[in-house]
Amino acid sequence: MPELRKDPITSRWVIISTERGRRPHFLEMEPPHKSDGFCPFCPGNEDKTPPEVLAYRPNGGPPNSPGWSLRVVPNKFPALQIEGDLDRKGEGMYDKMRGIGAHEVIIENPDHLATISQLPEQKVEEILWAFRDRILDLKKDRRFRYILIFKNHGTAAGATLEHPHSQLIATPIVPKRVREEVDGAKEYFSYKERCIYCDIITQEREQGARLISENEDFVVIAPFAPRFPFETWILPKAHDSFYEDGQKREYVNLARSLRDTLLRIEKSLSHPPYNFIIHNTPFHENQRDSYHWHLEIMPKLTRVAGFEWGTGFYINPTPPEDSAKFMREIDLTP
Amino acid sequence: MPELRKDPITSRWVIISTERGRRPHFLEMEPPHKSDGFCPFCPGNEDKTPPEVLAYRPNGGPPNSPGWSLRVVPNKFPALQIEGDLDRKGEGMYDKMRGIGAHEVIIENPDHLATISQLPEQKVEEILWAFRDRILDLKKDRRFRYILIFKNHGTAAGATLEHPHSQLIATPIVPKRVREEVDGAKEYFSYKERCIYCDIITQEREQGARLISENEDFVVIAPFAPRFPFETWILPKAHDSFYEDGQKREYVNLARSLRDTLLRIEKSLSHPPYNFIIHNTPFHENQRDSYHWHLEIMPKLTRVAGFEWGTGFYINPTPPEDSAKFMREIDLTP
Repeated sequence: MPELRKDPITSRWVIISTERGRRPHFLEMEPPHKSDGFCPFCPGNEDKTPPEVLAYRPNGGPPNSPGWSLRVVPNKFPALQIEGDLDRKGEGMYDKMRGIGAHEVIIENPDHLATISQLPEQKVEEILWAFRDRILDLKKDRRFRYILIFKNHGTAAGATLEHPHSQLIATPIVPKRVREEVDGAKEYFSYKERCIYCDIITQEREQGARLISENEDFVVIAPFAPRFPFETWILPKAHDSFYEDGQKREYVNLARSLRDTLLRIEKSLSHPPYNFIIHNTPFHENQRDSYHWHLEIMPKLTRVAGFEWGTGFYINPTPPEDSAKFMREIDLTP
Repeated sequence: MPELRKDPITSRWVIISTERGRRPHFLEMEPPHKSDGFCPFCPGNEDKTPPEVLAYRPNGGPPNSPGWSLRVVPNKFPALQIEGDLDRKGEGMYDKMRGIGAHEVIIENPDHLATISQLPEQKVEEILWAFRDRILDLKKDRRFRYILIFKNHGTAAGATLEHPHSQLIATPIVPKRVREEVDGAKEYFSYKERCIYCDIITQEREQGARLISENEDFVVIAPFAPRFPFETWILPKAHDSFYEDGQKREYVNLARSLRDTLLRIEKSLSHPPYNFIIHNTPFHENQRDSYHWHLEIMPKLTRVAGFEWGTGFYINPTPPEDSAKFMREIDLTP
């Protein structure tokens, strides 16, 4: 059973997960499974994953059989486990609890090599619906306070399997970094009575220098203070706190924005490793006015070294005005 | 000129440093200079670095000539620049200032291949004295609020040159992560009227499960909530806020502890990449009672992926009780 431990000085939580040490690739630096090897996420290998919790089967068919267009399964090497109670405890001056939570894998499509930027828009939209379906389902479990949806693409970004997939982790506490962001936005709101993200969108659309693209519902920008070269944010234009509360049309436009943006990143940087993360509002808290959900994409081109670890400052050699210009001007005609 | 920009939501500062983009290894994933190539840090190549700011020459000799046993030079690709004023400015809703600071390289010894664990103790002590000399000198510059001393060892930990070296960065603001730690310790002190690190040392020495080694002045532990497998902290036993205020004997014993600990890490994990960072008290603040300087070593065996970026939680597959036991039992006889 994984254990959650709190650093007594900074209140940072750590998941001690010996289960996860059994993953095939721990402590190894080799690239992930290549397409010629065995892949547990490919159709026909449904019995090599834990039983599915969600699948889209356009032509029907029984669970855990081929014929799916998207499939969600519990992670075989979960960082957190779904059964049990938190069981908060002390150990002298330290605090810990059992590592309760959900850890799921969204297998985005049956094709081992088709990444989001190569899929048709309707297929990307399906992934976004799956994120929503899983959030709505897990939100019913009152033990959970937050759900993080993220993607590790490429070995350097932490992916251990090549088949295109995203991940979801539901946690019993609001993570520190989410808390910082939500609190920062709340503080701005209490001072200005405006959403800070709405203000950012207004300024970026006026200034234009960091604007990458926009459509009816979404705006894509390079943030003013990016941690990494080509860091990119996708924000809904209308103020909206919860990813899962969007209109049908918004998922269509988000699919369009996400696919377009990943394509621009891949063309700009010749297929870099990247992470993307959906920043959503914690459940059961009243942040509806102050927090604005969005998606952040971070290509992994630079290494995080001692200076970043020690300070929490990032050193970024690429001004966002340069990366935005570059991405705006990419020619997307095939 | 580098620019410091503040993320308006989280108040995280970022250094936009186009200068640094010119480093030979940016955007490349290849290993650092190997010993058969040209090395700007080797004796005889003193003119390939900016002029030295400190050097130890046991037999004398002019500056920027061979004959040194340790040499400190400004970083050729500095993240921050030494000349000028901060010039704080707004840009609409955003805040920025000029990237003023010092960025220096401590070339630890003339031998291209002799890492700290392979040096005699007196040579390690010399490195520790150089850290102190540079802190004392830079502390006089009233623009600076903090000095971070750190080492990136191995490519995966961010080193771009192989020749053994550490780095120093002096910053005009107290970095966010330092602030969190210092404030956490202060909060504990105001509640308990005791230093949290002193309490940690007491509990760890009593429990023993996470204790790795100790000598007259220093204790080495695996922390209760480590972010990474084999994360290791070296703490002075006596309460002390400032690295630079130690007694002569303490640097001798720190050299012994550091060398011994790095040797244990290298033997445990077959020469992993690692970062170490000295956590010191910010200048010109009254934290003398509550903050306790120490050194943290983080081997880089796991990759930081989307989950860690999104939450600030770390997933660690190795309990500190296991890593401490392993390191305690390493046989150090050559």
